[in-house]
Amino acid sequence: MTDELIEKMCMELRRGTLTIAVLAQLRSEHYGYTLRQALAELGLVIDEGTLYPLLRRLESQGLLTSEWREEDKREKRFYKISSEGRRVLSQLLDEWRELNASLNRIV
Amino acid sequence: MTDELIEKMCMELRRGTLTIAVLAQLRSEHYGYTLRQALAELGLVIDEGTLYPLLRRLESQGLLTSEWREEDKREKRFYKISSEGRRVLSQLLDEWRELNASLNRIV
Repeated sequence: MTDELIEKMCMELRRGTLTIAVLAQLRSEHYGYTLRQALAELGLVIDEGTLYPLLRRLESQGLLTSEWREEDKREKRFYKISSEGRRVLSQLLDEWRELNASLNRIV
Repeated sequence: MTDELIEKMCMELRRGTLTIAVLAQLRSEHYGYTLRQALAELGLVIDEGTLYPLLRRLESQGLLTSEWREEDKREKRFYKISSEGRRVLSQLLDEWRELNASLNRIV
């Protein structure tokens, strides 16, 4: 029971962070596969079932733009942060830094 | 529209962090009012409508214990972290530190 609870709470903790990570990483253009690889190399492992819906949601919110393009003879959907996304990212980073400062004082 | 979205995303970011802050702060016993004050002084402002349901939820999950006691001629409900809560806190802190390390590499 407690392990499930911890898992649920960790997911809650990760959720907000993932949005920041994805927006920040998409300051350079990526398609899903290379984005996932880049985040994993930086220590943030996200499964496809989490990443792809998140990308679609961020695009529908106007924070990302996407474009289908052929690469290595395959059509791939490339994502990049929008100017609106940059504005949101900057505010999320401010909030994140404040939260961290508070939490560091508490723990 | 974007301001609402940013607000929603910041809330999402705060949600996981609040649990850690409350558990950590309740390594010392507090009742609601002094807990809220202590967190605010450390930079984490939580309204009562968020804090009290969170306290009840954490207690129902076995992560806090509480006790009614008279202080200054008023009955107050004092909260403290349980041993199960300490175990959960320690794992959440590990997760939080890992997320932060990853995010710091990304941004």
